Amino acid sequence: MEKLVRKITSMNVDFGKWYTDVVVRAELIDYTGVRGCVVLRPYGYAIWEIIMSFLNHEFRKKNIENVAMPLLIPESLLQKEKNHVKGFAPEVAWVTIGGNEVLTERLCIRPTSEALFCSHFSKTVKSWRDLPKIYNQWCSVVRWEKSTRPLLRSVEFQWQEGHTVHATSQEAESFAISILDLYRDFFEHILCVPVILGRKTDSEKFAGADITYTVECMMKDGKALQAATSHYFGNNFARAFDVKFQNKNNKSEFVYQTSWGLTTRVIASVIMAHGDDDGLVLPPDIAPIQIVIVPIMIKNNAVFEKCNEIFNILNRDFRVKLDVSDQSPGWKFAEYEMKGVPIRLEIGPKDVDSNSCVIIRRDNREKITCGFSNILTEIPVILTKIKCNLYKNAEKFCRDKIFVVKNLSEFKTVSKQHCFIKTLWCGSDVCEQYIKDNFGFSSRCIPLDENQCLFEASDHGCVVCEKKASSSVYWGEAY
Amino acid sequence: MEKLVRKITSMNVDFGKWYTDVVVRAELIDYTGVRGCVVLRPYGYAIWEIIMSFLNHEFRKKNIENVAMPLLIPESLLQKEKNHVKGFAPEVAWVTIGGNEVLTERLCIRPTSEALFCSHFSKTVKSWRDLPKIYNQWCSVVRWEKSTRPLLRSVEFQWQEGHTVHATSQEAESFAISILDLYRDFFEHILCVPVILGRKTDSEKFAGADITYTVECMMKDGKALQAATSHYFGNNFARAFDVKFQNKNNKSEFVYQTSWGLTTRVIASVIMAHGDDDGLVLPPDIAPIQIVIVPIMIKNNAVFEKCNEIFNILNRDFRVKLDVSDQSPGWKFAEYEMKGVPIRLEIGPKDVDSNSCVIIRRDNREKITCGFSNILTEIPVILTKIKCNLYKNAEKFCRDKIFVVKNLSEFKTVSKQHCFIKTLWCGSDVCEQYIKDNFGFSSRCIPLDENQCLFEASDHGCVVCEKKASSSVYWGEAY
Repeated sequence: MEKLVRKITSMNVDFGKWYTDVVVRAELIDYTGVRGCVVLRPYGYAIWEIIMSFLNHEFRKKNIENVAMPLLIPESLLQKEKNHVKGFAPEVAWVTIGGNEVLTERLCIRPTSEALFCSHFSKTVKSWRDLPKIYNQWCSVVRWEKSTRPLLRSVEFQWQEGHTVHATSQEAESFAISILDLYRDFFEHILCVPVILGRKTDSEKFAGADITYTVECMMKDGKALQAATSHYFGNNFARAFDVKFQNKNNKSEFVYQTSWGLTTRVIASVIMAHGDDDGLVLPPDIAPIQIVIVPIMIKNNAVFEKCNEIFNILNRDFRVKLDVSDQSPGWKFAEYEMKGVPIRLEIGPKDVDSNSCVIIRRDNREKITCGFSNILTEIPVILTKIKCNLYKNAEKFCRDKIFVVKNLSEFKTVSKQHCFIKTLWCGSDVCEQYIKDNFGFSSRCIPLDENQCLFEASDHGCVVCEKKASSSVYWGEAY
Repeated sequence: MEKLVRKITSMNVDFGKWYTDVVVRAELIDYTGVRGCVVLRPYGYAIWEIIMSFLNHEFRKKNIENVAMPLLIPESLLQKEKNHVKGFAPEVAWVTIGGNEVLTERLCIRPTSEALFCSHFSKTVKSWRDLPKIYNQWCSVVRWEKSTRPLLRSVEFQWQEGHTVHATSQEAESFAISILDLYRDFFEHILCVPVILGRKTDSEKFAGADITYTVECMMKDGKALQAATSHYFGNNFARAFDVKFQNKNNKSEFVYQTSWGLTTRVIASVIMAHGDDDGLVLPPDIAPIQIVIVPIMIKNNAVFEKCNEIFNILNRDFRVKLDVSDQSPGWKFAEYEMKGVPIRLEIGPKDVDSNSCVIIRRDNREKITCGFSNILTEIPVILTKIKCNLYKNAEKFCRDKIFVVKNLSEFKTVSKQHCFIKTLWCGSDVCEQYIKDNFGFSSRCIPLDENQCLFEASDHGCVVCEKKASSSVYWGEAY
């Protein structure tokens, strides 16, 4: 195929360079004058808008209400929860001057909004009647990261952050887990990305949380992406921010809380789970353009009319684009492959004559000849096949790169490749740190579903110290 | 009617206090620890979400694409357009420390994003093929305002800001005007708020613009609210940021630009155009709850079942709430009046028996008895009547408070009341400033529609200097 677009780096040559080539060439982002802050261009933001719309739809089913908290947090407010401030204070941006005057108290740009939500809850939650409060906001946050990559790790990034308040610990904890399930469904069914669900170890959990649940994905380079998290706070924040309610017996109690979030990083997960050397491969549900129609010999009137007719038929049910620009068909093929459009329809004079056209799948290049009269029934079938195929391939890739390991010498051998390693673990920070220091693998999570446990009854020792294990753990090289 | 909710200040006693009482008691906002920064609570944010959804729908028809620009602007970038920086630099918040280190160049939190868009355009606009670019973003911005009021004038506020780039001045200017038309339709048809469209005088226009078009509304205290603006930039910004394109003759030209925006201030306009001493009065199209069903004697099984049945019928087509909480009906009446819910349905045992219920309109308290079988046809009719009535009343109020004045002594007399005053004007800053200094009235706009001109051919002198007038002007006391 004619390649008129500028080539990108092959993923086998330099995966990191391939990734940044894709995000720029597919016009997802543009860099700006501030390190770690990017423009989400129309094509990138359209993906994010579709993601927001899917999640808002699911959130509404759970009676989650959207709100907008302010951008700025006074230093004294951020400092109320000690673990939280310890985790975040080193990486925040400080506003020290407003309207030409030096502020008496500096304000940080929210790195996350627990302090703001808690302060609001402390004023608005009074009685058991006010509970639960189940809030979410869509916004951007700022964390002064030292090394940044677009969509993956930024100084500013877009996200949703949910914050809830409950009367009991059971209700709060099961809510945190229900969000993890919501995220899993979203990754598996919408993004076609397989995930591993688990709990973070103490050293990896969110600053201020009792439990951090996590969604971990494997990328095409074998590395691990923490793709979403859901935290159970117990009443740590409630005590620090004095969030209390009168229970039905008129006694004052602290509330129990959760928070949970998912960022534009999910777009990075899609790029690195499905992409290839020709660019993006988008799962149909989040593709801003699901079908592109490329006319062959556009100046042929019959072709032009047939393209418009098919566009109008498809435009009712799908996000479809008819590209009538004066670029060559070859340029258009490469351009929409780069942008990961799931289906391309080629319509030329011969197709008009034969009353059919050629459908090309982005995921596996399959060419399907389809009569024009069947197109409305055929397209949804193909889109579903694309979804299944994307998931199946990503799942197989991930499964083939998870290794169960019983001792350090096995760990050493296996960890030479980029993969996930599953072991037993005693639960100590020391053994966790040993793996990090010696192999560069961090603990990803303690899996929730121990039915997936691949260990036998006779296996019971921690992979490092060989003492009695308390759980299994996935290890990986983290983004 | 039983009033169990806390009373608010009457609008005739203290309009300003009435306003802040309403925004707090209707649970639109909560104050925070940072002056001028509020929480948009679920009810307030739901209104904003509906507004965003309406405007996004209209924007899509005009091929406007949403994007996300970063939050932070380097000082050197802000300084590129001289008038722009002069207007905004005194009221920005500066980030001077990031991740514990003092920054070599300070960054301001965007007060508006012209600099960011122009910087992006200068990289991405190369040829006539790239034009026009028609972008919008939904975000919050920060302006260090000295005196603030929730939704009306804040340090941080939510808005949409559109930014476009065109090949010709004609195309850009007509685009700016087409947005003004879009805003007018939105105010009149969706918010039921009458508007005056016009051009700002030079002293009131946007920092950096050639022309600022404005949407002006009158509030129930007779004061003027600038509710939305659309700016034509010429190529001022293009020259400052070097945004050029190759035209079809391969010559390099500067682009022509517009920007336009509308903020959460539109919610303030609705409050102050339609509200009353019982609280909010929401136009049906933006009401998060369009119909509230209040059961009378909720423990009566037949009532409970009928309420649920009617809820399920209405819930398909409308935003409806059935309040089954244990609060008294009187409490609920007052609560949903405070929240401005357009229609209340009362269903008690007698209604179940008579197979009908009572519908109460929020706008004029009219009670309408309606058979249950007619409810799905009756409700849309009532909602339309509410819309018409809101617009009609606001329009009459505004019309009655616009006075045409020919000389300074008339101006002095008329300006003792809160109103709009229309005069002829010579176009000089000096005369404009004279009116401001002597009467506290600022120029609102030079009306676009001179068909509305109420002057006779014999009137031709400026209201201040009596020299030949160049246009008519609306004057008012501005929010």
